[in-house]
Amino acid sequence: MHKITMLGAGLIGMFYTMVLHGNRSRDHVNVIYSRSADRAKQFAADWDIPNYTTDMAAAINDPETDVVVIGLPNSMHEEAVALAAKAGKAILCTKPLGRSATEAKRMLEIVEKAGVFAGYLEDLVYTPKTLKAIKSTRNGALGKVLWARSRETHPGPHSDWFWNKEMSGGGAIIDMGCHCIEISRNFIGKEVRPMEVMCWADTQVHPIEAEDSAVGLVKYASGAIGQFEVSWTFRGGMDLRDEVSGTEGTIWLNHWLRTGMDMFTAKGEQGYVAEKAEGETGWLFPVGDEVGALGYVEMFNDMLNSLDRYSADKNSQPMETFYDGYVVNAIMDAAYRSIESKRWEPVILDDWRGSNDADSGAQMSEYDADHFLIKEEKMPDGKTKLILKEKAGGKIVQKVF
Amino acid sequence: MHKITMLGAGLIGMFYTMVLHGNRSRDHVNVIYSRSADRAKQFAADWDIPNYTTDMAAAINDPETDVVVIGLPNSMHEEAVALAAKAGKAILCTKPLGRSATEAKRMLEIVEKAGVFAGYLEDLVYTPKTLKAIKSTRNGALGKVLWARSRETHPGPHSDWFWNKEMSGGGAIIDMGCHCIEISRNFIGKEVRPMEVMCWADTQVHPIEAEDSAVGLVKYASGAIGQFEVSWTFRGGMDLRDEVSGTEGTIWLNHWLRTGMDMFTAKGEQGYVAEKAEGETGWLFPVGDEVGALGYVEMFNDMLNSLDRYSADKNSQPMETFYDGYVVNAIMDAAYRSIESKRWEPVILDDWRGSNDADSGAQMSEYDADHFLIKEEKMPDGKTKLILKEKAGGKIVQKVF
Amino acid sequence: MHKITMLGAGLIGMFYTMVLHGNRSRDHVNVIYSRSADRAKQFAADWDIPNYTTDMAAAINDPETDVVVIGLPNSMHEEAVALAAKAGKAILCTKPLGRSATEAKRMLEIVEKAGVFAGYLEDLVYTPKTLKAIKSTRNGALGKVLWARSRETHPGPHSDWFWNKEMSGGGAIIDMGCHCIEISRNFIGKEVRPMEVMCWADTQVHPIEAEDSAVGLVKYASGAIGQFEVSWTFRGGMDLRDEVSGTEGTIWLNHWLRTGMDMFTAKGEQGYVAEKAEGETGWLFPVGDEVGALGYVEMFNDMLNSLDRYSADKNSQPMETFYDGYVVNAIMDAAYRSIESKRWEPVILDDWRGSNDADSGAQMSEYDADHFLIKEEKMPDGKTKLILKEKAGGKIVQKVF
Amino acid sequence: MHKITMLGAGLIGMFYTMVLHGNRSRDHVNVIYSRSADRAKQFAADWDIPNYTTDMAAAINDPETDVVVIGLPNSMHEEAVALAAKAGKAILCTKPLGRSATEAKRMLEIVEKAGVFAGYLEDLVYTPKTLKAIKSTRNGALGKVLWARSRETHPGPHSDWFWNKEMSGGGAIIDMGCHCIEISRNFIGKEVRPMEVMCWADTQVHPIEAEDSAVGLVKYASGAIGQFEVSWTFRGGMDLRDEVSGTEGTIWLNHWLRTGMDMFTAKGEQGYVAEKAEGETGWLFPVGDEVGALGYVEMFNDMLNSLDRYSADKNSQPMETFYDGYVVNAIMDAAYRSIESKRWEPVILDDWRGSNDADSGAQMSEYDADHFLIKEEKMPDGKTKLILKEKAGGKIVQKVF
Repeated sequence: MHKITMLGAGLIGMFYTMVLHGNRSRDHVNVIYSRSADRAKQFAADWDIPNYTTDMAAAINDPETDVVVIGLPNSMHEEAVALAAKAGKAILCTKPLGRSATEAKRMLEIVEKAGVFAGYLEDLVYTPKTLKAIKSTRNGALGKVLWARSRETHPGPHSDWFWNKEMSGGGAIIDMGCHCIEISRNFIGKEVRPMEVMCWADTQVHPIEAEDSAVGLVKYASGAIGQFEVSWTFRGGMDLRDEVSGTEGTIWLNHWLRTGMDMFTAKGEQGYVAEKAEGETGWLFPVGDEVGALGYVEMFNDMLNSLDRYSADKNSQPMETFYDGYVVNAIMDAAYRSIESKRWEPVILDDWRGSNDADSGAQMSEYDADHFLIKEEKMPDGKTKLILKEKAGGKIVQKVF
Repeated sequence: MHKITMLGAGLIGMFYTMVLHGNRSRDHVNVIYSRSADRAKQFAADWDIPNYTTDMAAAINDPETDVVVIGLPNSMHEEAVALAAKAGKAILCTKPLGRSATEAKRMLEIVEKAGVFAGYLEDLVYTPKTLKAIKSTRNGALGKVLWARSRETHPGPHSDWFWNKEMSGGGAIIDMGCHCIEISRNFIGKEVRPMEVMCWADTQVHPIEAEDSAVGLVKYASGAIGQFEVSWTFRGGMDLRDEVSGTEGTIWLNHWLRTGMDMFTAKGEQGYVAEKAEGETGWLFPVGDEVGALGYVEMFNDMLNSLDRYSADKNSQPMETFYDGYVVNAIMDAAYRSIESKRWEPVILDDWRGSNDADSGAQMSEYDADHFLIKEEKMPDGKTKLILKEKAGGKIVQKVF
Repeated sequence: MHKITMLGAGLIGMFYTMVLHGNRSRDHVNVIYSRSADRAKQFAADWDIPNYTTDMAAAINDPETDVVVIGLPNSMHEEAVALAAKAGKAILCTKPLGRSATEAKRMLEIVEKAGVFAGYLEDLVYTPKTLKAIKSTRNGALGKVLWARSRETHPGPHSDWFWNKEMSGGGAIIDMGCHCIEISRNFIGKEVRPMEVMCWADTQVHPIEAEDSAVGLVKYASGAIGQFEVSWTFRGGMDLRDEVSGTEGTIWLNHWLRTGMDMFTAKGEQGYVAEKAEGETGWLFPVGDEVGALGYVEMFNDMLNSLDRYSADKNSQPMETFYDGYVVNAIMDAAYRSIESKRWEPVILDDWRGSNDADSGAQMSEYDADHFLIKEEKMPDGKTKLILKEKAGGKIVQKVF
Repeated sequence: MHKITMLGAGLIGMFYTMVLHGNRSRDHVNVIYSRSADRAKQFAADWDIPNYTTDMAAAINDPETDVVVIGLPNSMHEEAVALAAKAGKAILCTKPLGRSATEAKRMLEIVEKAGVFAGYLEDLVYTPKTLKAIKSTRNGALGKVLWARSRETHPGPHSDWFWNKEMSGGGAIIDMGCHCIEISRNFIGKEVRPMEVMCWADTQVHPIEAEDSAVGLVKYASGAIGQFEVSWTFRGGMDLRDEVSGTEGTIWLNHWLRTGMDMFTAKGEQGYVAEKAEGETGWLFPVGDEVGALGYVEMFNDMLNSLDRYSADKNSQPMETFYDGYVVNAIMDAAYRSIESKRWEPVILDDWRGSNDADSGAQMSEYDADHFLIKEEKMPDGKTKLILKEKAGGKIVQKVF
């Protein structure tokens, strides 16, 4: 079992604590830190936490805890990581790791130098659907992955600091693009190098400095494309969908608004419907197990199980590491540069630990000695049509039989 | 924390153990009993269980365990309950409680007489979607519940004993009707008395004695109808859906084949796709978190949390009790009688602990001093049409404006 | 081309006329009859109809028209049929044909005696989805049909006369059960004799005499079950779904609330959303082509194309005939008797033109010389499990490999 | 009524003819032209067409026809348009209008100079769902449109010439991007000027010269983004979806694989399932009315009804004109340039007939005298949280109550 220092008493700290304490868990939060004494006190009372404080260093150095969970605004991640590494504790940091690749790389170096266990709390990679889809993809059900779209849009975040570019490091991209990019990386393969990024972004609706909408394309060495779509302007709730396609198949995931529970109510009920729901009457689409569907449960299972193994085996790593957080930041940096330059921008990775192979382009599929097969199709009249390419000369012909 | 005696090493024992050990749980199975020594030994090895045995009494009387989980064929429930009650242990028994209301009532009396904690492992009531839907219904989102349909169909159960009427007590009704009936009871209200049952059943496909398909209607004192549909003949996977409608709203739940994950694969992957899936290629509909979606996680949370409170408060009960199991058996008994008599049959409950109020029939809604309102509708031409009933004389008239 | 007498200027007359004139049609309504001169005049103006009248006989005897379409309240069908038959015109009558089988049979006899072409305007059998599903079923995609559920529920009909038992002949069953019953007949096979009916009905919500909700089971000679669910109490719009299952497959049809068009609007737009929609904001589910999705387009294509062939071949019949209308009425009569008697009631068909074969019960599938196969299943551990029945003795055993 | 010259006896000619003759239409194809005499003869026999020929000019100059429908490979459009314009006939040309904006502009000039009626057969804009969605959008249900995604992907086209860059003018963009671009234009507003395009494309799978996958972004003067996704590499059937979001709402359209008809078949049926379906067993998603769902029915209704009005009013135009075809070609040209230059490329429109207003950027929404409102949200604890921006200084603050 683990006793945990929780840094941050906002919505994310609440979700984390709910999950860490849930399901008859043997782990427990031992101290909660918040910048506000009132919130810290209330949070401790709400969640049965023995200690609270407004002194971050004291929380981290609590002699009973062995794990520090960072659920703070982005601008405070690095300081918290440094203090926790110094204390020799396991560190689990929320997404995004940094506000830039430079900041993320410093955090990566701090934990590696200190030799402490570190996990990157990228929850949406851990939703049960995503885990199952990644496994099927790894097992070859889709063949070679060609394209992975990940979309997260809703009417805007909960807390003021998200909307403040200085504290967050950006807008919708830094808030949600990090999820989408890492989901695509998991489908395409983390060993495949991200090469370059093209991104559009704009401030379409809200009176803020940062972007409230963005669409980006990430080109990988394999020829695959990762596509991210993020927005704080979406109406209708929270749209959380992924699509992957490969040479042999397709996966569609819908995490929030269409998960098999539809409710019409003319009357409504009092209170909360679902995260970022709009409206309380009419057709609603609640999610049964919200924290499960968002990946929090499997994420902390993996983090703490990996940590348990770590004492015996220093190679034990969670599925999502600080290195992954750094790669994601590097891709987001390229996206922000592309918005300015209006062209594809290279992903700059000083420290690339994956493969350098390129493997893109069409695969020739032989039909017979003289032809490549382009396509085979069943027609409305019951016949089969083949589209073939002559090996000699490259002429395209069709056969029907 | 609890140490558990697990009775039964079949698929249900495996699901139970997986869940009891999952999510960094503080509870653990300490001994596994199976009729087959080989299976007991293998199960213990697979699930990290310190002890195994083919002696049921020895398993139950294991001095370290305080909870007995019964995952045995229906014909063995009563014996196991009796032994566990004698040992003074908490008892959690799988569904259906008995093969008949008489048998179930004996089990209820055994545990109540012994004063032991007892829970009825009706998992499908505990799916996160069902729990949320029940809560919304209780909160009034649907108004008064009028109808609750619950459907469970698939190509047939896993183990030979299900197909043996002597061991199971029946066919598709006893296997799955118990789920559907209890789901409807939760929506309609457990305090509302089930009055009578009309049921059709047949052996449509499989060469067995028991029914492989059934549709039943349960009429409640409130006027609400619970509808169950069960079959071992369904093709396409496992169809697990609930629908509820009330005076103010509607809920549709789909637990299995359409939960937001669609996969097309031309190639397939090796091995298991999902419980009762048919086929490994083409369009498949995997469920991300199968044991969560089937209610096992929330069920054991409730059972063991209730048990924890029970030491201090003997009134602490789980959501699903042996009494509920008994009511379900009484409804299934009436269904079986109706199949024979071809008419509505009363539900015989010697021991009714709910309300005896009836509350059925139409609610008059006043439109003005002279009229009741039947209906108000927006027409294609943009006008509003009212259908009214004159208080004096009862004539039905319409007004458009 | 045909010139048409349209009887009835209500919603159904409007839909019919819209469709008859639509799609660059060569057919046209030549005279509109309504009980109200104002409505007749307005209707003629709205739909470019040269003549209008409040004299039904005059409308029917219009010398230019060769087809009479009956879109009147149920209580007026027989009179209209008699007049049109006397005029020697082709007759297309809306659903239900009669208020009882007796009335329907008289209408059937009238048209057969007069030797005029007659079609039964059962539109929901003609939806493009239903037609395609019937074709697949006929082609064997589902194997032998075992069960066909058809559901039509909404908050109640448009016009006052529907709510008046005298004029309509009943409540939700007569209004919508006729659709559901005929849809099931088409899936199960029109040649298969309907044997008996069990039906529950109640007046759950509206202050009316007739039933506002009903669920019925129709047992066919093949062992198949047709299930109908109708209600005027449903909230959330119009729920129009069919489900069919057979030994080899399953079909699910959703005609209205989930057809691939989802709209969220915080603001709404002025006016009509969709037939029987509730609410103008929030999540809405419009249907693109409403009259197409309700089957009107294909219905009139079939009716008028069949009529064109009829001049050369007196055996040319539309897919839905007055005989079908009569069978449907006979099934509804049995349903109404069952509500009273609370038992299964026989379907009384003095004039049965289908097959008298029975073909129910389980099909034995041989596994090897000594066993029948009950079931084969892929297990989570990748193994295959067989459930077998020993031919000698009937014992049920399982094999895993 | 119209008599029609049909040019092209391939799949598209067949769909066009089926629709023109369908639904008891008063219009008819009078002559079919094909490059192959055999196909022309067979086509005439199959579709009851009195004349066939391999002489395109003769077909166009058929003295009985007043409309020429062009369903030929892209490389033959211009020649056919020139001949038909010379003959003074109404011209309906399939998509894309040209292989480039230059070619399209020449065709536009030919018809405008000749003063003949001309329509652009962009069918997917005419699907009943799209028409309804466009209408709701125009009525303000979505507020200001911010983003419109249109996706068309499948395993590749039917005929050899599509795969030949010379004949088609490109790959997946020219084949399907034209649909997607015009769908987005209809949602965003045709009067809004398309400004610049960023596009990725690659030949990921097939051994061809042209692109088999592409994703593009089109930036409009209003700040809205049109996003197109096309591919000939998709597995699982034909993926035809549109999504639109605006300041007040969202629309999701699914035209093909999820339209409310699901079929599981273990056995299959002989023959054709649906356009570009893969596989004949397992879960299939047939479309009831394929030609309706693809927009052909409404397209020809609009074209021919507009033509009927044209004789009286030379301003009568169909919804989709040659000018629209030209704009689409200009956007595709920019997309192809962007693929090469790897940067945003301007859309070059020598002849712009829409508005030149720009109207992009955030809309300030006042909360009170001192603050703008950024966002209002209901929290899980039932409280409401406001995110505000101080008018003086721009600081972002939150209030909870």
